[in-house]
Amino acid sequence: MDSFSKNQLERYPIYLKYFKELEMAGVVETSSPKIAERLGYSQEQVRKDLQAISSEPGKPKKGRNVLQVIGDIESFLGYRNALKAVLVGTGHLGGALLNYPTFHEMGLEIVAGFDNDEKKVGGTIGGKTVHPLSELPNKLQELGAKIVVICVPASSAQAVCDLAVKSGAQAIWNFAPSSLVAPKNVVIENVNLASSLAVLSHRLNANILKEEAKRGLGYPHTERE
Amino acid sequence: MDSFSKNQLERYPIYLKYFKELEMAGVVETSSPKIAERLGYSQEQVRKDLQAISSEPGKPKKGRNVLQVIGDIESFLGYRNALKAVLVGTGHLGGALLNYPTFHEMGLEIVAGFDNDEKKVGGTIGGKTVHPLSELPNKLQELGAKIVVICVPASSAQAVCDLAVKSGAQAIWNFAPSSLVAPKNVVIENVNLASSLAVLSHRLNANILKEEAKRGLGYPHTERE
Repeated sequence: MDSFSKNQLERYPIYLKYFKELEMAGVVETSSPKIAERLGYSQEQVRKDLQAISSEPGKPKKGRNVLQVIGDIESFLGYRNALKAVLVGTGHLGGALLNYPTFHEMGLEIVAGFDNDEKKVGGTIGGKTVHPLSELPNKLQELGAKIVVICVPASSAQAVCDLAVKSGAQAIWNFAPSSLVAPKNVVIENVNLASSLAVLSHRLNANILKEEAKRGLGYPHTERE
Repeated sequence: MDSFSKNQLERYPIYLKYFKELEMAGVVETSSPKIAERLGYSQEQVRKDLQAISSEPGKPKKGRNVLQVIGDIESFLGYRNALKAVLVGTGHLGGALLNYPTFHEMGLEIVAGFDNDEKKVGGTIGGKTVHPLSELPNKLQELGAKIVVICVPASSAQAVCDLAVKSGAQAIWNFAPSSLVAPKNVVIENVNLASSLAVLSHRLNANILKEEAKRGLGYPHTERE
């Protein structure tokens, strides 16, 4: 079960999205080379990824049946049995996530919000009731939620994480720009915008340097000699 | 320059955050083992990561000077010269990003929003003016922005990406749950919530299975025999 790397797991929703587009376009079958080209992966990677979750694992495939792959990925990702979550911190980002339209398609159901802001408590955002944070321990059990989505500022993220763990949360989906400490049996998955930006700006700057170097090479020697 | 892997790049903002916490707490020096323990990385990885961007690369370090590491990481990530971006799609998520309070600390400045919704055009969100999408080509040049943040639904993300590329964007920060195609010299970085969720639910389910197996081992043989 744990032989799947983080990078590999991250690819399955991307395959799924692509296969659903193929299905919409009426495509019945496709091949690893075509998938690899469209998504920018290697052919070997595509074959390995799809074989690892195939319901017919032994059989080497020439063509990939679109509907079957969709079914295999959805089963693997557990999209047929949505996991329940609650969200703490109903500011701009938290509010956006409570309103996010397609979580149910990704196997997640956010069933309630929590906040310390008295103006928000008792109201609803995206159709979900906002409760006071003090009720997290009771509500988590009552609602049968295993996941706590953390959308508070970095300065209070660890305190919310501690409360969530004490309340019985088994996984934390952390949107605060802060690394959290929790017992080993609690899963922590970070959506770290700063990390994503670091990758983007590093690659952007590398491209700009490459462009400048190319432009430099356009005038070889003559100007310097 | 390109010898940095995506995973390694993603760690630098996490180091930076931690070192800033140390600075706030008045800590002057720390060591790789301590950093490794707090952040859950291996000691070797920490040493390699920090050495790779150190302003004194040759010198093997016993203690790490907190202020110096902060300076090294900020220089490496280019946080002193913020990159300018514009954002397309000012719905819930786009609006949350326009209001996101700490992008300037991450080297990003979102200078304007774009939308097709007439009710939003001409107004401001998070202090940034919202322009009609048709003005993207002109405004991108005028504002000196290199990055386009895409927050539209998956179904229109590729069209917005094409327009951004035609308008001269050099990087796309994509929040739409869709994989985009662009010329090779345009950087695409995806914040894919479905991918993050796939990692979370896979690990959560693995833990649940582990717990069940453990509980099963608590009653060996007796009940079955």
